[in-house]
Parts: sequence; structure tokens; C-alpha cells
Amino acid sequence: MTRDEARAADARDPLGGVRARFRLPPDVIYLDGNSLGALPATTPGAMAAGVETAWGNRLIRSWNEGWVEAPRRIGDRIAPLIGAAPGEVIACDSTSANLYKLIVAALRAAGGRTTVLSEAGNFPTDLHVAEGAVAAVPGARLRVVARDDIADALDADTALLLLTHVHYTSGRRFDMAAVTAAAHDMGATVLWDLSHSVGAVAVDLNGAGADLAVGCGYKYLNGGPGAPAFLFVAERHQARLANPLSGWFGHAEPFAFTDDYRPADGIDRWLCGTPPVLGLMALEAGIATFDGVTMAALEAKSAALFDLFRARGEAAGLHCITPVDPAGRGSHISFRHPEAWPINSALIEAGVIGDFRTPDVLRFGLTPLYTGFEDVWRATETLGAIMADGRWRAARYAEKARVT
Amino acid sequence: MTRDEARAADARDPLGGVRARFRLPPDVIYLDGNSLGALPATTPGAMAAGVETAWGNRLIRSWNEGWVEAPRRIGDRIAPLIGAAPGEVIACDSTSANLYKLIVAALRAAGGRTTVLSEAGNFPTDLHVAEGAVAAVPGARLRVVARDDIADALDADTALLLLTHVHYTSGRRFDMAAVTAAAHDMGATVLWDLSHSVGAVAVDLNGAGADLAVGCGYKYLNGGPGAPAFLFVAERHQARLANPLSGWFGHAEPFAFTDDYRPADGIDRWLCGTPPVLGLMALEAGIATFDGVTMAALEAKSAALFDLFRARGEAAGLHCITPVDPAGRGSHISFRHPEAWPINSALIEAGVIGDFRTPDVLRFGLTPLYTGFEDVWRATETLGAIMADGRWRAARYAEKARVT
Repeated sequence: MTRDEARAADARDPLGGVRARFRLPPDVIYLDGNSLGALPATTPGAMAAGVETAWGNRLIRSWNEGWVEAPRRIGDRIAPLIGAAPGEVIACDSTSANLYKLIVAALRAAGGRTTVLSEAGNFPTDLHVAEGAVAAVPGARLRVVARDDIADALDADTALLLLTHVHYTSGRRFDMAAVTAAAHDMGATVLWDLSHSVGAVAVDLNGAGADLAVGCGYKYLNGGPGAPAFLFVAERHQARLANPLSGWFGHAEPFAFTDDYRPADGIDRWLCGTPPVLGLMALEAGIATFDGVTMAALEAKSAALFDLFRARGEAAGLHCITPVDPAGRGSHISFRHPEAWPINSALIEAGVIGDFRTPDVLRFGLTPLYTGFEDVWRATETLGAIMADGRWRAARYAEKARVT
Repeated sequence: MTRDEARAADARDPLGGVRARFRLPPDVIYLDGNSLGALPATTPGAMAAGVETAWGNRLIRSWNEGWVEAPRRIGDRIAPLIGAAPGEVIACDSTSANLYKLIVAALRAAGGRTTVLSEAGNFPTDLHVAEGAVAAVPGARLRVVARDDIADALDADTALLLLTHVHYTSGRRFDMAAVTAAAHDMGATVLWDLSHSVGAVAVDLNGAGADLAVGCGYKYLNGGPGAPAFLFVAERHQARLANPLSGWFGHAEPFAFTDDYRPADGIDRWLCGTPPVLGLMALEAGIATFDGVTMAALEAKSAALFDLFRARGEAAGLHCITPVDPAGRGSHISFRHPEAWPINSALIEAGVIGDFRTPDVLRFGLTPLYTGFEDVWRATETLGAIMADGRWRAARYAEKARVT
């Protein structure tokens, strides 16, 4: 594909107009929306109104004018993106805290089963939190096995299978329906981490018979740095699972101010403390960037961006580790190279913001709402130039990795 | 005191100029800053810059340009307000989640002691969370006793004494040093909830030999609705206590992406998920409203506002339940009246925003940074008129309480 052909692909892209829903800096090509989504154009105004009017003028009265309901209202806006029903999703806390709630809850309701099974190399916080969660349930343990050994490791003691739907490094995607069915056949519950799936690929939790899920608000949902996360509990499980983080906003009557905890019916019981209203305002504006966009259209564009990136990335000398089959991956593309860190640094200096993942992975987010074909063409042209001229070998690219 | 005398008191108030640090709506007298602090004048600009520049333009790079350090940096700004040292406070999660972390951690380090002791009628989330926390530690239990029975209830099984320093309803304040010493004499650890103390009264955690504390960012700290909370762990306890919510941001090397959890040294281990950056931005601007203000000056003004409010409130026929001794209370004033709910509703309609607390308490926040003597004079004048003309008896004030 030539640059002109990339431009032509943008011109006929049915999602091309959606890019105007974002404020993108003119001097960079941003390929890290899977780590931090770009700023929606409506967010500054929504935040200003929320801060100056709802907080500044209405003050405490705003709790009765939309704030109390925000976690549930936003959950109901996330629901259609993940195949959930209204009342099955709530926006709250961090992904990590939500993992803790659901792991502990599932273990306590597991009828004597004691094992949480997960994947070696899962996103770190999933494993870290699982370590903490099993410590809260007598006899429970965390078992971590290689991806290819998960099916065999499911057994009569498996209480919970904890998996990230799309892997944060490789981009590999589990077959949610098949894995869920296999776990159910063994009597286990499944908790899906959708952080790299929600807003990236079509997810159908109820179609897959899923039990529990968590996900991130600040990646593909464009909710802003450290946005509130969300959690999903299938309706059939809601009455039997209890939130270990039993804070007042999960109480049946938070403003009755009683000493005893009595959980709310339904999804509200998964709230803990006072909701993070400013973060929720930005998350709500972020989710609105999906208005009128079908996941099928997103997936189709993502696949075309992927094919272009892969062909030109491999031509530049990198080895793609993300599955070629679109059904087997998310919406990012990763390459392995022993010098991934300095190459990524050189790319950033050249205005192409991708991501490094330890020890040797270059990762690029393909966010079809605001990434175009010409972006990918230019980014891979720069990548090719960096690989060809070897500028990444310069000492200044060797400094220690921090967040990327 | 006449209205002119109240004006004169404002004119000579050494904190009078601080009011300009806030954007207060002109049509109300706001006496609920102990529930939701007012909007600082710098916050809209700080949020706009944070959203449009740090997020919108710098994107993922901002994590290396101030975001990663924000929880600790803000903790270090809270520390001098509560008598803590740098590195002993961190801003994170909600008060409720922070209570859970510290209660579980203290129980696990209690050498076989199993009781969490707290006060009946403590703020509900403290008791609710304690219920959830004891369920995470085999053999642990929550014991709730009347305030006057706490000293006698401390015994050789008390692992943790969990108290709110200033009571959210009555405004009664515990003698932190004396209670801490009594608990230490019995071999117990103390966890102070400072939600109604921080920024309201002088707090000296290290002077009192305190162990653990949590507090709220959205009340007197003016951090905005649902602002991140904070927690304090005395330096001597930091190495021996473990965070049960073992998320990736509390890891010694969050970006090394290892499967095993290894806690950070020091206060950073109390982080869990990705920090809520937008909320932290507002909290940082809120704390800056205290720049150059001494807690002694705040307490002196609060005492004078209290005396004025009490005299005129009692003259209007309400019964003050907040201790008269300034050392025995926080910075709000509460009155008991069987018709507190409709009276509060009538006050709000008349532009005086106070607070109702079930079942029969009228509560008014005295926030000396932005509340003046004429405000109190006018508010109590309105209160007197409402009590005299009986308008609160009208049916429209009887609707069901929600958040107030």
C-alpha cells in the first residue's frame, strides 16, 4: 500500500468521521490507546460543566441530581459493548479492587472448592490481586499454569478460572464461549478480565454464558487516566455473591445510617465507598465516543489496520507475535525484537507513540475510532527508517524503562 | 451580635482573604462543607490543564511527567495537616477501601488477638467495612460498644481499636493522645478515621503516638465529589504490615511485570490499582487552599463561628448536641429537633444549605476557609424565621430523605 492508497482507504472508511470526536495532538501519531485512550472532544466541556456547575454551583445537591446514580447509569452504557443486560454492570473502583471483590466472592460461594486457576504471564495485577484474595479465604490457593495447560488444569477443586480475555502483550484472545463452557463442565466459575477487550472487540458475555467480568475504563473506553473501572455479575449470580469490600454505597439503604451492613439487591452491592464522581464524568464522556458505532464496524477496520501494520512491520525486520486470525486477537499488534526498548524510544522521539512491554515486545494499539490508515502507513514508514538507519543504537535510547 | 457586628468580625478576620480562594454560588449560604467541600477557584483551571494538556496532548507520556508520583506527592501535602511525616501518607482509593486494607493488615499482624473494637453509631461505612474485614481473617470478630464503654471494653484480645476522631453527627472529638495511650497500654493498635478532622481541627498523629489512620478528600480538603481518600501508616509499622489489596501499583516494581507480588517499601505498598489521576488533580488543587493557613488560625475562627451559631440556634429553639469545649469537638455544629428533616428542607429552600442526619439531627459545617460571620448571622436569622413562622410544617417539606 502506498501513502496515497492509505489516504484513499481513510477517505472511504465508514468510521472516518468518528475521528473528529477526539482531540489528538497534531505532532504525534498515537498508537497507545490500548494503554490510555485519547481525549474525547466533548470531555473538556463535560468536565468543566461538572466541576463548575454541578460541583461549584449545585454543591451537595448534585448527589440527588445524577451523581448517586452515575455508577449504575454508566454501567448500563457499558453493558451493550460487552453483551450484558441492564443491571449487570456497574462502574466503580479500580480493575484491581474489582478483581479482589469478585475473586473473594466466588471463592466463598464455591461450595468447598479452593483453587483459583490462572495463566502464567497474565497481566500482573490479576495475579497479584489473586494472591491477596486467596489469603482472605481459608484453604484457598492460587494455581498459575502456562496458557496451553489451562484446560488440563481445570479439575474438581477449581473454584474460579481467572483469565484475561485479550492478552496485554501478545494480543491473543481466548474463545470466551468455549473456555467458559469447559470451565462450567468442570463445575468452575469464570472471571474474565476485559481490560483489553472492551471497546476493542465484540464481546458477548451473556451469549457465552459468562459468570463474572471486570474491565478498565481508561483504555479503549477513553475514560481518562486512572478512570473508574467496571464489573459484571451475571443476573443469575447476583443474589448469591457477597462483596467483601462492604462499604456504605453497597448498602441496601446507604443513607439510613444503620450500624449493620445489609447489601443492596442487584448490582449496586458491588459499590464500596463514595463514587469517584469526577472520574465518572470523564468516563461517561469517553463511552459516548462509541455512540452509533457497531463493534462489527470496529472489528472490520481494526483487522484492516492490523494487516497493513503487520505487513510493513515485518518488512522492517520485526517479528509479529500477535495471531493473524482476527478472532484470535484483540485490537493491538505486538512485535518481538531483542532491542524493543531502544527502538520504542527512538519511535517516540520521532513522534510515533507506541508501547514497550518487558522484556522485548513493541506493542501498538489500533483504535479504529481515531486511528487511520495513513497513521499506520506513516508510523510504519518511521519504524522502517529507524530499523534501517540504526539510530536506536545511540546511547540515549538505553535509559531505564519507566511507564511506557 | 448584630449583622453589622458580624460584618465587622469578617472585616478583621485574619482568614477573611482566604474566601477568595473559592467559587461560592451567590444565591446560597453553604454550610455543608463537611460533607462536600466548596469548589476552589483554581480547580477549574487545574482540571482543564490536566485534561487538555497532560491527558490530551502529552497522553501516555504524562505518567512519567507527574502522574505516577501523584499519590505520594499529595500524601506528603496532607501530612503536615495531620501531624505526619513525609512518606507516611498516601492518597488513594476511597476511605472505605482504605479502612479495609488497614483493618485486615492490623488483624493479621496482631499476634493472635482477634477483636476489632469500635463504637456503636460510628460512621456506617466504618462498621460495614469492619464487618467485611473481619470475615477475611480467621477467628476475627467485630465488637461494637457504646462510646462510654470503649475504655472498659479494651482487653487482651483487642487487636485494633477503630474510631472516628470527630463524630459525623454529634461532632464529638476523642482525645487522640489519651485514647491511643490507653489502647497501647492494653497492647492494641488504633486506627483513626480522620474524615471529619482533616482540615477541620489540628491533628497531631505522631505527637499522639498514632498507628494508623484514614481520611476523606472531599470534605474539608475540598478535593471534589468522591475525591480520592488517603491513609497513614506510622513509619515504625510500615515494614510489618501487608496490604491485602495487593494490586500492581503497590508492587516494588510495577513496571517489571512479574507474576509474583512483592510489596513496595514504605507507603507505596498501600496503593492497589492504577491511581485515579483526574480525581487526584482536583484533590491537589483542593489541598492548596490551605497554603499558608495555620490550623491554629482555623480552630480559632471555627470556635468563634460556633459560639455565634450556637447562641442564635438555641435562641431559635434548637438543642445543640455538639460539645461546647472546642477541644472536644470538630468544626461542625449539630442540633437535635424531632422535626429536623422538614426544618432542613425549609432551610435549603430559603438558600441555607445545611445537612440532615437521621433521625433528628440538623448539622451545619463551619469551614473557616470560606464561611464568615455574616454567613452564620444570616443563616441563623433564616433559621429563626423558619422556626417562628412554622413554614416547615407545610406538607412539601415532608418528602423522603435522600442524600442531604
